[in-house]
Amino acid sequence: MLNNLTQDTLFNNARTHNAWTERPVTDAQLRHIYDLMKWGPTSANCAPARIVFVKSKQEKEKLVGCMSPGNATKTRAAPVTAIIAMDMAFYEKLPVLFPHADARSWFAGNQALIDATAFRNSSLQGGYFIVAARAAGLDCGPMSGFDADKINAEFFAGTTLTVNFVCSLGYGDPAQLFPRSPRLAFDEACRIA
Amino acid sequence: MLNNLTQDTLFNNARTHNAWTERPVTDAQLRHIYDLMKWGPTSANCAPARIVFVKSKQEKEKLVGCMSPGNATKTRAAPVTAIIAMDMAFYEKLPVLFPHADARSWFAGNQALIDATAFRNSSLQGGYFIVAARAAGLDCGPMSGFDADKINAEFFAGTTLTVNFVCSLGYGDPAQLFPRSPRLAFDEACRIA
Repeated sequence: MLNNLTQDTLFNNARTHNAWTERPVTDAQLRHIYDLMKWGPTSANCAPARIVFVKSKQEKEKLVGCMSPGNATKTRAAPVTAIIAMDMAFYEKLPVLFPHADARSWFAGNQALIDATAFRNSSLQGGYFIVAARAAGLDCGPMSGFDADKINAEFFAGTTLTVNFVCSLGYGDPAQLFPRSPRLAFDEACRIA
Repeated sequence: MLNNLTQDTLFNNARTHNAWTERPVTDAQLRHIYDLMKWGPTSANCAPARIVFVKSKQEKEKLVGCMSPGNATKTRAAPVTAIIAMDMAFYEKLPVLFPHADARSWFAGNQALIDATAFRNSSLQGGYFIVAARAAGLDCGPMSGFDADKINAEFFAGTTLTVNFVCSLGYGDPAQLFPRSPRLAFDEACRIA
């Protein structure tokens, strides 16, 4: 079992941040996040998540223009905001990622399975992304309030990628946190059968 | 930044297991997993994931009967197999989980938003679940090869719950691991803009 500091850093004391300090995030840290999260399991190793780390002022303003009004200011203020997307043609990589079977043929032509697999697994990878960013020492501010069509048009036109959610990265300002919201008790969310 | 042992335990050296030792998993460990993962962020704190930890022989056989042929034996062999489900009526809990706004009204009646929010966020929570189980010292064997209608009929009849994916928990037998499959390089999956 990992020590308490680890569990606190990843889960117990980790908070969603909306306000960010000036401390910058390096490209090496972004690579570190990916180099951790990439090992998280996905169905048939399909790994459909694709990430755009939006860091430059110009690209950030494009993204800010896609966010809902409540998310625009905090997106502008973050040192980096990642777009977690999914590649709807993920199965074209399966001959490399899952070489021991013809896994491509399980998906090609089955759009309902493609859609569910891309969404489930890129979201799972989004969970790994958030925990990996915290393991790398950063705070996260995930958001799903945005105009998805607009993000797709601005960042993914002419590709097979589509946005799943968006997550700011940086060093959050703890003074500007809201009180923590409650969680469901074990017996409300789980049972042992 | 967390130390290398932590990063290795959660990501770099963590493997999907298909074969399990006899070492049992306690109910306290299952509660520990939930008590970590529950803190992971979800949209409007909606926390749609619901978990059935299938542990008894009788319930496990019911679940085995719902798995695809390739997953039946390994599901039977695992000390516990968790069904990660989503509550499609998750928004009824928002007056408790997100008390500072009428978040229920954002969802009620908007089935497309309900469906996407339940699926995205219960999958995100599935990612937290897998990392939390590893932090708690267990190995994971996530699976999405099963008859979803059958699991829903066997475990969730008359409820608003529906299965998302399934994940065995226990102490994996490292001698029976396959060689690790490749991952996409940073530049294949990510860009910094």
